[in-house]
Amino acid sequence: MGREGWWQLLSADAEDDRDTRVETDSLGEVRVPDSCLWGAQTQRSLQNFPIGHTLIPIEFVRAYAVQKLAAVRANHDLGLLSTDIASAIEEAAEEIRQGLHDKEFPLVVYQTGSGTHTNMNLNEVIANRANEILGGSRGTKTPVHPNEHVNMGQSSNDSFPTSMHIAAVLAMRGCLLPGLLSLHSAVCDKADECMDTIKVGRTHLQDAVPLRFGDEIGGWAHLVATSITIVQAAHDSLLPVAQGGTAVGTGLNSHPDFASTFLTHLVSLTGVPFALSPNYYAATASHDALVQASGTLNTVAVSLMKIANDIRLLGSGPRAGLGELSLPANEPGSSIMPGKVNPSQAEALTMVCARVMGNHTTVTVAGASGHLELNAFKPVIIDALLSSIRLLGDASASFAARCVVGLSANRERISRLLDMSLMTVTALTPHIGYEAAATIAQLAQKRDISLKEAAMESGSVTAEEYDKWMVPQDMVGPRTSDL
Amino acid sequence: MGREGWWQLLSADAEDDRDTRVETDSLGEVRVPDSCLWGAQTQRSLQNFPIGHTLIPIEFVRAYAVQKLAAVRANHDLGLLSTDIASAIEEAAEEIRQGLHDKEFPLVVYQTGSGTHTNMNLNEVIANRANEILGGSRGTKTPVHPNEHVNMGQSSNDSFPTSMHIAAVLAMRGCLLPGLLSLHSAVCDKADECMDTIKVGRTHLQDAVPLRFGDEIGGWAHLVATSITIVQAAHDSLLPVAQGGTAVGTGLNSHPDFASTFLTHLVSLTGVPFALSPNYYAATASHDALVQASGTLNTVAVSLMKIANDIRLLGSGPRAGLGELSLPANEPGSSIMPGKVNPSQAEALTMVCARVMGNHTTVTVAGASGHLELNAFKPVIIDALLSSIRLLGDASASFAARCVVGLSANRERISRLLDMSLMTVTALTPHIGYEAAATIAQLAQKRDISLKEAAMESGSVTAEEYDKWMVPQDMVGPRTSDL
Amino acid sequence: MGREGWWQLLSADAEDDRDTRVETDSLGEVRVPDSCLWGAQTQRSLQNFPIGHTLIPIEFVRAYAVQKLAAVRANHDLGLLSTDIASAIEEAAEEIRQGLHDKEFPLVVYQTGSGTHTNMNLNEVIANRANEILGGSRGTKTPVHPNEHVNMGQSSNDSFPTSMHIAAVLAMRGCLLPGLLSLHSAVCDKADECMDTIKVGRTHLQDAVPLRFGDEIGGWAHLVATSITIVQAAHDSLLPVAQGGTAVGTGLNSHPDFASTFLTHLVSLTGVPFALSPNYYAATASHDALVQASGTLNTVAVSLMKIANDIRLLGSGPRAGLGELSLPANEPGSSIMPGKVNPSQAEALTMVCARVMGNHTTVTVAGASGHLELNAFKPVIIDALLSSIRLLGDASASFAARCVVGLSANRERISRLLDMSLMTVTALTPHIGYEAAATIAQLAQKRDISLKEAAMESGSVTAEEYDKWMVPQDMVGPRTSDL
Amino acid sequence: MGREGWWQLLSADAEDDRDTRVETDSLGEVRVPDSCLWGAQTQRSLQNFPIGHTLIPIEFVRAYAVQKLAAVRANHDLGLLSTDIASAIEEAAEEIRQGLHDKEFPLVVYQTGSGTHTNMNLNEVIANRANEILGGSRGTKTPVHPNEHVNMGQSSNDSFPTSMHIAAVLAMRGCLLPGLLSLHSAVCDKADECMDTIKVGRTHLQDAVPLRFGDEIGGWAHLVATSITIVQAAHDSLLPVAQGGTAVGTGLNSHPDFASTFLTHLVSLTGVPFALSPNYYAATASHDALVQASGTLNTVAVSLMKIANDIRLLGSGPRAGLGELSLPANEPGSSIMPGKVNPSQAEALTMVCARVMGNHTTVTVAGASGHLELNAFKPVIIDALLSSIRLLGDASASFAARCVVGLSANRERISRLLDMSLMTVTALTPHIGYEAAATIAQLAQKRDISLKEAAMESGSVTAEEYDKWMVPQDMVGPRTSDL
Repeated sequence: MGREGWWQLLSADAEDDRDTRVETDSLGEVRVPDSCLWGAQTQRSLQNFPIGHTLIPIEFVRAYAVQKLAAVRANHDLGLLSTDIASAIEEAAEEIRQGLHDKEFPLVVYQTGSGTHTNMNLNEVIANRANEILGGSRGTKTPVHPNEHVNMGQSSNDSFPTSMHIAAVLAMRGCLLPGLLSLHSAVCDKADECMDTIKVGRTHLQDAVPLRFGDEIGGWAHLVATSITIVQAAHDSLLPVAQGGTAVGTGLNSHPDFASTFLTHLVSLTGVPFALSPNYYAATASHDALVQASGTLNTVAVSLMKIANDIRLLGSGPRAGLGELSLPANEPGSSIMPGKVNPSQAEALTMVCARVMGNHTTVTVAGASGHLELNAFKPVIIDALLSSIRLLGDASASFAARCVVGLSANRERISRLLDMSLMTVTALTPHIGYEAAATIAQLAQKRDISLKEAAMESGSVTAEEYDKWMVPQDMVGPRTSDL
Repeated sequence: MGREGWWQLLSADAEDDRDTRVETDSLGEVRVPDSCLWGAQTQRSLQNFPIGHTLIPIEFVRAYAVQKLAAVRANHDLGLLSTDIASAIEEAAEEIRQGLHDKEFPLVVYQTGSGTHTNMNLNEVIANRANEILGGSRGTKTPVHPNEHVNMGQSSNDSFPTSMHIAAVLAMRGCLLPGLLSLHSAVCDKADECMDTIKVGRTHLQDAVPLRFGDEIGGWAHLVATSITIVQAAHDSLLPVAQGGTAVGTGLNSHPDFASTFLTHLVSLTGVPFALSPNYYAATASHDALVQASGTLNTVAVSLMKIANDIRLLGSGPRAGLGELSLPANEPGSSIMPGKVNPSQAEALTMVCARVMGNHTTVTVAGASGHLELNAFKPVIIDALLSSIRLLGDASASFAARCVVGLSANRERISRLLDMSLMTVTALTPHIGYEAAATIAQLAQKRDISLKEAAMESGSVTAEEYDKWMVPQDMVGPRTSDL
Repeated sequence: MGREGWWQLLSADAEDDRDTRVETDSLGEVRVPDSCLWGAQTQRSLQNFPIGHTLIPIEFVRAYAVQKLAAVRANHDLGLLSTDIASAIEEAAEEIRQGLHDKEFPLVVYQTGSGTHTNMNLNEVIANRANEILGGSRGTKTPVHPNEHVNMGQSSNDSFPTSMHIAAVLAMRGCLLPGLLSLHSAVCDKADECMDTIKVGRTHLQDAVPLRFGDEIGGWAHLVATSITIVQAAHDSLLPVAQGGTAVGTGLNSHPDFASTFLTHLVSLTGVPFALSPNYYAATASHDALVQASGTLNTVAVSLMKIANDIRLLGSGPRAGLGELSLPANEPGSSIMPGKVNPSQAEALTMVCARVMGNHTTVTVAGASGHLELNAFKPVIIDALLSSIRLLGDASASFAARCVVGLSANRERISRLLDMSLMTVTALTPHIGYEAAATIAQLAQKRDISLKEAAMESGSVTAEEYDKWMVPQDMVGPRTSDL
Repeated sequence: MGREGWWQLLSADAEDDRDTRVETDSLGEVRVPDSCLWGAQTQRSLQNFPIGHTLIPIEFVRAYAVQKLAAVRANHDLGLLSTDIASAIEEAAEEIRQGLHDKEFPLVVYQTGSGTHTNMNLNEVIANRANEILGGSRGTKTPVHPNEHVNMGQSSNDSFPTSMHIAAVLAMRGCLLPGLLSLHSAVCDKADECMDTIKVGRTHLQDAVPLRFGDEIGGWAHLVATSITIVQAAHDSLLPVAQGGTAVGTGLNSHPDFASTFLTHLVSLTGVPFALSPNYYAATASHDALVQASGTLNTVAVSLMKIANDIRLLGSGPRAGLGELSLPANEPGSSIMPGKVNPSQAEALTMVCARVMGNHTTVTVAGASGHLELNAFKPVIIDALLSSIRLLGDASASFAARCVVGLSANRERISRLLDMSLMTVTALTPHIGYEAAATIAQLAQKRDISLKEAAMESGSVTAEEYDKWMVPQDMVGPRTSDL
């Protein structure tokens, strides 16, 4: 059921009480569909924010379930919750974490800026489900109460940012880093494969001095390797979480040992070395580690856009382009031009990069717009960040598997272009000087003759000297060592 | 069924031929689930682009169905398609337009940059459905062929941008303009309601000279009115469509009268005064009207962010803030602080604005990155643009209905703050000069006394003069006339 | 003297009173260099904002002098200033407008957000200069007082935004529109020159069906023409000015006829049909017309980046690139590679485009960040906007004169590439179907033979049919009509 | 002399040979003003790029002189340059480094994208100056030749990016880090000073539970501390330089030991632990470390914008705002409202932040737009990056000294607001439950009574319980420990 389905159901229920029950919150009663586990506050948000169709990402909901799991275990350890209640809450949270209740999280990103509605969505679904597990029924808030038990010792203002960090870290580990690693591996293999091919270099898109194809590709490998390094650093800077600060950073209404106990469970549940934020005030009021992470993803997008553009340039053709690379033909390229093959994986990747750059603007504006004790742009920040992480991870993996692996160097054409190139004249400079060398290149271009012919004609070098100095293999330096 | 569902189905079918059929394209055979209407090229895209979960927006698919409807009618009018085939294509396209086949469009945004895969998705679903309507079966491409009949006279390179314009124009008319109009109406009503209330002005967030509350709100109304004007202009600039240029703008393989006949049908199908692009080369290679439209939405976001911020500033409190406005309590505000009411509609709106600014960066980068005869960032451009249109429209309507309408001025507090203000001293400047007036204000602030007391003490004015010159009603100028 | 010079002078004068005089403002006394015309508030700003070296643009200062000229004439017309004082103010303002006092405006962009310091810089320089003209001396504020006479009826909050509009409009008329017009003219001429050359088209950077070179270039001309249209619209939307609203939009302390009289003089001084803002509250609190203008410049940057990129792609080579265009050799291209010629004008232009996109982000963030009665980001908005206008205008003119005019089509190479192309196979589709045509293209590519050879071998067409259907001239449609 | 001056001089010299000399390059002869040390290529660039007035930053020119110094020493060490020539080059480069020839670098940012013109500007000025030092004359290129001696073993493609890194690192060390450190110190001191003041918290700009003022300010200190940490990381990632790769990364025409010898001298000249890039291909073709550094500056801008906004919110008033902070009165705030004091340092800082965010968009677009062996957006990248570094450094230092140090807490008002607050009701939740507490808060707000009165009236708590549970000091948790 899409958003439209929910809304139809909602407008239906204004006139018709069948199949609904009454749920309550501090503002009064609300009717909720019987089939749903959520409660009054979720229902209010559903009705009050008919804004677009972008739901809170389900990965985020599942990460929030991890937060709820660690919280209930901590409160139980501290003797604040009975074993019965804690077990039921735990079971319900675990079900959400495993994706068994994805349809119970219908709220959109554009809700309250603290994400309180989603926190209450979790609290309400867990409470109703826990009450069912304990033999009770939905809407009763007893024996398990969404605020007093499920949300115990927590505020949206600390649990939501904690879940932002959990979700981002898990997505980096589960999607982005593996995607970048597979890309790095594919690019390194291709660099190795092309290491003996010498080709014309191009600067300013103009013919330049030669280099090994493997070194050119090795430059891309270096960019991907650097991407992995900076993503790892961004990952590490997201490990400290806000949990324990509650509403404004003071920790009011949470047990003094809640945060540390919570952390132990979080680490054990995820296997990730999370930590507690050294400053809860900043952790609630700002999300600068997430902004910086977004900046890192923006840098990754910059690197990948360059690589993808290079591949589509080198693969341009087949007959009227640079034509140095052949790209795999994964699908027909045109609905009107038969036989066309396009660099579609490169295009998907560069579109992802444009999206990531835009997501970064969103995160920047949102991150800069907090006021006093709260940044009230939390949902849009995590939505944009998770989008960037997932898209870069998926697109890197797909680009590696469906483009890079299948690239092949057109050695014959590469060799022909190198032979015709004028910029190898640079090798003469140490011997005859910059200006004499320039004269030779200009002559060759003007008369459409080879460089050697022009060199002979210029009188600056002999044929023997020319052949001795003009060896492409001698111009390409040592091989890339950091693949 | 979400993307995951499709993918499970796909990996399943690698091992198991049950419930699949063979479809073909120019690269060979592909197995497609029997239950689906799409064909080989859609299936290849589904398998080749496992990149995120953002599907091509369904509004865009429906707009594309309108394009296909107009195209088949044109080709039939020109005698290029038999009535039987044309009728079946028309019926199938009409079903898609009406949303009966939404699940047949599983492709993601991050595919080929021309959107060819989505064009073929339309072509294949229409052909298979048309063949069924004509009593044939799926996968046969006969009597209706996806390329030769459904795509007749078209290329992705002209039909996709045409559909981008159709979708954007329809979304502006159906969502954004109505949303802005409802917001404008609500703001104007509120300005009227508050026109007699005089309050302290604030510049640099510091107390300044007074103004009518209605005029302050009227300033917001002016911003919304300007937003409507510029969106209308953006709408108009999107009316010319690329149809007729086919692959590179020359119109190769389309009937000389195809474009004009297509246009007649497009206008009649939509009731919108679309036109043909005066330059097909530019219309395929660039999307600057869409970039400019995105810039316009960015300006609207800037205006709405200012309005929403002002409302949350004026509504800050209830006791430790500016407190001049009371906001409606739509839902409990905090999971930990009982009784809290937050400006959640303003927050949703400002998050939308941050998203729109980011979408604009995406569209800018994508729009600037075209090469020669094609901009190959089409899907991400239309996804970002439709997101901005829809979010701004929805959020404006919600903000109007759930926030602006329910605002109430706290007249007592407003009056108290005005009485205490020092900046009304400005009214003395024409009589006693800037520096003497400044001395009075500084004295009042330093000694924490009223302005009148300070004025008396300064000796610059008499009590009679003070009372005569210091009349807030005389300081607020004529009422806003453009509500 | 650069900023450093001023600062040395300032720190010097802390210890040394020689060559300084005392100026005063409402906070007390300040020492000012004798050689300078500015007063206490300018001096305070100079000392309080040692932030970067970017001065308020001098074009803006001169536009502000126009505002001061119109204001003094209006106040004189209304009988509020004596002829002596008004004449002296006018003479001083006219000198500034003509650039005779550029060195008297040392303030940086990063000052107070209302631009009050620059307004006072104008007021103080004019007052001191006017007093000199009247035989008095600097620092006396008599007979001409900076606030009471020069600033009469004005606030920074209306005069600064008025001057922002004046400066932007004059820069569009004086630099941007002429630059774009010269570019349009050069591109149209080049399109005409190349109209008879048929060449291979390229979509996705892959060979596609042919088109006229003149039509390809005509697409660029269309983009520039559209740029001119939207810049003209932005220009028109900047004509209404804030003057008359004073501090918060109410017009407090300005004569009821001041604004309309001011306008008459402004129009007469500039010859531009300025108008008064219909809503002074919005005009002080927001700068959305400037944000929208910046969005328009962003669109222009998108268009120009595409054109410049196309030119460097087509001009890539000379031997290992696409090589269809020869670019003028304006300067040696490399410090190490002799004889290299680079597309340096295209590079300068695309760097300008990157800067304009960044300026647009600045203007967007600044425009969205106003509070209540004032947007306090005025100086950075006008600095960024004027930078974009000037750079786009200058770069367009330079690109036209030093690149576009000198482009020449390499007809021989163009012809050779067209002959080898495979995508002309598209012309066979209406006759033999998409899939048979695809088979021919794939065969030609695989076997590295010509399309005709492959067609013969495929048996799908006869040689006669092939020659009849495969005529590039028949594939390129009608000529661009909108040059 | 500004750009205008140079241009007048240039157009003058078209008609008039007096006071000029002939310089030559590989394209031929150019007339250059006698008074200038630059040569033909600088002159060509000056004439060919009349685009805006933004010169290559002088800090960058001086950093480039350091690069030239290290290069000449390396070439001398390797026996490639005679001691005479090397000494003269060194002396000339040292003069540039010390700022003695700033006026000899008239080129604008918008030139060739490799920065070759600026490299040649350095080479030419150094060669002419060295020849003078050696008793020769300008324009002779002998005994010192700009390409063959000054540029020996270098290409713009490695020396320009090397100088970008040198300039950015020196600016971080000399300006940004000191500025952030002074801000951190000032904020920490203020946090200490306010540690005993308990105040109302505000989330969503709505009254929330209390916290220490010192902890709120300590949150800002944490943001600044994090800024310092990430800037330090960005600094470190810029230490590897491209020198040694020459034109495309292969090192063609440089001595095998040139790079390592260069590095030794670079480290010794600067005292900074620079290194050689592990991949010269990437170092020439991409500038992702600079993009990532710009992303870091963007994060710093986000943090500082939040801090500055908080200060202007807390300082709003003096009578109709939050009024918890008094800001220092550095200058009169208004040209029309006497006695007004504005948060001008906060405004300057937030304008800087908007500029830095825009610079980041510029760097992102520029960084993503490289092709193959060269990113041809180098000058605009370094201009934008140095602007961000300098502005953030200067503005942080000024904000610390002229705003933060002078802030004072208005303890009486803070105390009054805390007493009136309703959100302390949260302290009752653990005792009476969320919903009973919410009822009390709503009652107090509705009836405009104190929380205690409402609590009594509700019957949920006794007066003794209320007084025991409702102790602000018990609600504020442990003091911030990381100042």
